Amino acid sequence: MTRATKKASTDRGELDRLLDGEFLAHVGLVRPDGWPVVMPTALARDGDRLLIHGSTGAPWLRALAAGAPACVEVTAVDGLVVARSAFESSIRYRSAVLFGSFSPAPDKERALDLVTDRLIPGRVAEVRRSTAKELAATLILAMPIGEWSLKISAGWPEDEEADVAGDAWAGVVPLRPREYDAQQPAPDLRPGIATPPSVTRLLTPRRS
Amino acid sequence: MTRATKKASTDRGELDRLLDGEFLAHVGLVRPDGWPVVMPTALARDGDRLLIHGSTGAPWLRALAAGAPACVEVTAVDGLVVARSAFESSIRYRSAVLFGSFSPAPDKERALDLVTDRLIPGRVAEVRRSTAKELAATLILAMPIGEWSLKISAGWPEDEEADVAGDAWAGVVPLRPREYDAQQPAPDLRPGIATPPSVTRLLTPRRS
Repeated sequence: MTRATKKASTDRGELDRLLDGEFLAHVGLVRPDGWPVVMPTALARDGDRLLIHGSTGAPWLRALAAGAPACVEVTAVDGLVVARSAFESSIRYRSAVLFGSFSPAPDKERALDLVTDRLIPGRVAEVRRSTAKELAATLILAMPIGEWSLKISAGWPEDEEADVAGDAWAGVVPLRPREYDAQQPAPDLRPGIATPPSVTRLLTPRRS
Repeated sequence: MTRATKKASTDRGELDRLLDGEFLAHVGLVRPDGWPVVMPTALARDGDRLLIHGSTGAPWLRALAAGAPACVEVTAVDGLVVARSAFESSIRYRSAVLFGSFSPAPDKERALDLVTDRLIPGRVAEVRRSTAKELAATLILAMPIGEWSLKISAGWPEDEEADVAGDAWAGVVPLRPREYDAQQPAPDLRPGIATPPSVTRLLTPRRS
């Protein structure tokens, strides 16, 4: 599973499609003792910046807020490339690695709204505004999209001629985009409260 | 989207279920210039060790092979926790972060077989053995499962009483486990070669 038919891309549109299609990012930073650490977090792209957020109680977020060098990685797995040998088999994926430093978003409330609506589109308009206490407990950080690399593996098996002439099967097994299952009301939901449009929309199969 | 109902877990069984359920890992390391970098890679757990592999031409894998400090992060997203406020909304997830150092797996061929069969169970028995040239072009690295932490967010919205008494909906929207779509034969597949059992099995819906 080694030979990748991957290629590097400098296509900003492809980068944006990946960032807008996957809400889970993996943020790398260096601990004070020099060891690397990777944290998963929800990601929202807003034009030329990345937004992440979390509790003011999270040391890794506080380190990022202070400008620690950061790496943001986002990867979509699109399928398996099943070649005629293990060596030529691989994964169809799109992966972005972005480097930079975060700082607190100057437009805190708007940035938080963007993150909420990225995960549950339309939800912001359905709920109350955040309180001052909630905002004070939240860090929302932005990193400009500057230095980045994008790798895309979208090909077919590239077997040696001798293998193609043989009897082994080869092809691709695509992974279906993830879908949401039917919503489950909270145990303490009061009777008579209808499922909101933002949740109903999540369940509508997306067209690719 | 800040308040997490997450909890730390020391359950090794839960850790193994996560590692065995997600084949994509995010490996953090520190570049020579001190900057963090995160790379996505296929992961296979073999008992008490993690296996990753790739081309001998990949500088980050060579750095890991030389014993660079590493962090391996694996995360499964299980759904969205839609609370009555943006603040209390969150993500249901399971996330593991493991620290350690890799070294070349002493049982190179067996370890590569484990990785192949992790991605496509049963495939090793269907294809030819790797050649000496292929093996020489491949790095397969192992890291013992030693220092790790596991966080699991599996709860329901935990709204303030005033919000529970209001009119906003709350609940959970589960994400369905990913499924494979029907296989696509390679353009150069010779006629008459049947789809192998390893590929057919991928398409069988898994029971959770």
